[in-house]
Amino acid sequence: MANVVILGAGVMGSAMTAPLAENGHDVRLVGTHLDGEIIEAIRATRVHPRLAREIPPRVRTFRIEEIEAAFEGAEIVVSGVNSLGVEWAGERLAGVLRPGQIVIAVTKGVRARENGDLRILPDVLAEPVPADVRERVGWGAIVGPAIAGEVAARRETCVVFCGSEEPVLDRLAEVFRTDWYHVWTSVDLVGCEICAAAKNCYALGIGLAEGELERRGEGDSRDRAHNYEAALFAQSAVEIRQWTSLLGGDPGIASWLPGVGDLYVTATGGRNVRVGNLLGTGLGFADAAARLGNPTLEGAAAIEVFGDALGKLTERAVVGEEDFPLMRQLYELIALERQLDLPWRRFFGGEPTPRPTRSA
Amino acid sequence: MANVVILGAGVMGSAMTAPLAENGHDVRLVGTHLDGEIIEAIRATRVHPRLAREIPPRVRTFRIEEIEAAFEGAEIVVSGVNSLGVEWAGERLAGVLRPGQIVIAVTKGVRARENGDLRILPDVLAEPVPADVRERVGWGAIVGPAIAGEVAARRETCVVFCGSEEPVLDRLAEVFRTDWYHVWTSVDLVGCEICAAAKNCYALGIGLAEGELERRGEGDSRDRAHNYEAALFAQSAVEIRQWTSLLGGDPGIASWLPGVGDLYVTATGGRNVRVGNLLGTGLGFADAAARLGNPTLEGAAAIEVFGDALGKLTERAVVGEEDFPLMRQLYELIALERQLDLPWRRFFGGEPTPRPTRSA
Repeated sequence: MANVVILGAGVMGSAMTAPLAENGHDVRLVGTHLDGEIIEAIRATRVHPRLAREIPPRVRTFRIEEIEAAFEGAEIVVSGVNSLGVEWAGERLAGVLRPGQIVIAVTKGVRARENGDLRILPDVLAEPVPADVRERVGWGAIVGPAIAGEVAARRETCVVFCGSEEPVLDRLAEVFRTDWYHVWTSVDLVGCEICAAAKNCYALGIGLAEGELERRGEGDSRDRAHNYEAALFAQSAVEIRQWTSLLGGDPGIASWLPGVGDLYVTATGGRNVRVGNLLGTGLGFADAAARLGNPTLEGAAAIEVFGDALGKLTERAVVGEEDFPLMRQLYELIALERQLDLPWRRFFGGEPTPRPTRSA
Repeated sequence: MANVVILGAGVMGSAMTAPLAENGHDVRLVGTHLDGEIIEAIRATRVHPRLAREIPPRVRTFRIEEIEAAFEGAEIVVSGVNSLGVEWAGERLAGVLRPGQIVIAVTKGVRARENGDLRILPDVLAEPVPADVRERVGWGAIVGPAIAGEVAARRETCVVFCGSEEPVLDRLAEVFRTDWYHVWTSVDLVGCEICAAAKNCYALGIGLAEGELERRGEGDSRDRAHNYEAALFAQSAVEIRQWTSLLGGDPGIASWLPGVGDLYVTATGGRNVRVGNLLGTGLGFADAAARLGNPTLEGAAAIEVFGDALGKLTERAVVGEEDFPLMRQLYELIALERQLDLPWRRFFGGEPTPRPTRSA
């Protein structure tokens, strides 16, 4: 049995209680300063209000003020905050982490330095932790296609635990793995993390297709825009592969669960896809976000980071001007409020210009 | 302007009239012996009964008995039959093809030799053509995500024309390419064709997820089985890549339009996915096919070919016993009428068995 603390009682942090409780672990769920109502609701009803599922009886809940009690004797810490909360979570962990503990993060996102160099979130999370503790803590992250509600519902889910130390990953996999929560491991932390961050951007892009159909007044047609979506999916797969290579990861990572698998599940729905739909109809990003009630849009946030970095990396000639045409377009839509004008002919290395032919 | 004959007035052959007519070509649409009613309907109403779209006015229609007149002066021949009609089409072409013509096939499927070696369809199509003609005809094929109804509706579509001769591909691309029908080219004919054939099998597999949810009585749940689908998608991508390598193609082909792009669009719907749903609910294949009215199921037909070949290739030690676990499962479902029992732990090279850990 392991003692596991989950920091963050949002949907993904809370869903992780399902495999952990099934395996008989001692699980402590700690709400952030934004999760006070969730913790109260679970205490009152045992049901998580956003997951609409019962939290297993063996899970104990803690408010953020009780974080020190929650961490007592913990072997494993799950960082369950969303991508906007990573710096906050790092600061909290800095005060309570002890050497020998293991941290595993569920967050998908990215940051960039002033010069455009991209940074993966586990590094951002670890940064505030004092060096002597940080170096004696095991660090990992979960990537791959895992919608929180389906994890909470104990649906088959296949994920990859990534990190730099194999024994840490093996221990984590042993603690989390069930008959339906399948865990593979990878020591390509950078490759896995950059796939996870990039796919949120591209899933938003795939949403453009349905929106553009509506803008053309063909939203009621029997014939949809699946060819359009599939072309965007394929270009997304190409660009995710290129991001992985650029950061020094194995591009093969883009070809299974952390890349195309996660892109597939993210494109099936959710807020990022809906904002893509609205952009496709011709709305500007601010209007589209407002239409959805200005929720947290992790994909849009990641597009701003990737797109801004892309400009700087292009200036520095780290990437070519013709590379990443889809991410550039997404950045223009989200950050510069330009109109949708997909550069189809620049996809897949460029549509070939006809050469003189044998019988023209 | 080019003179183009399309052999086969089914949905895909007929949809190809859309980009061709837009480019001002002389287009002749020839119905097979099974397409008599379609040709009559187009002649009477100009509307294709299955596409429910008007066939462009400049397209002339021919019955199979008029094939010789249709081929007069033709530069390009589109083989528009489905995968069950390829041998038939090859016999017809044998009688009318002339040196200097170009053939491009839209059919996706596969055949195998007695020993399990796989054969791509363009080779099967060309086989009945006398050698002296065959060698002086240009051969190509269209792969990538292209639902026929969406091509007929002039929706953005990105495809790859593959073949062994670049000048032939350039000429074809020039004839077909429009502002919305985008054409890339590849001289990796084998790689492209094997991706196209395999994805039909795997799309059927992705359909299992929703069916299994229903079998468990959770079909009405808010939480779907997208994680399950995405894991199957990722394992499919891995296996398509392995098929491509096995046949001597570039595995990179599996990572863009011909592979994951086409798998994505095929998984969005259609008969193959529906039969996968029914298998997931626990029905045997014969019952599932009957439930759908015993239509042509190209994915199921391809699974029988791939799966049977896989057994022979394994016996010959051309592939390992642990390779292609998903295709083996699909074959067991379709050809052997076994019950669904997905070998999750064999996916992605095998879920790691826990080793002794540092703190267990």
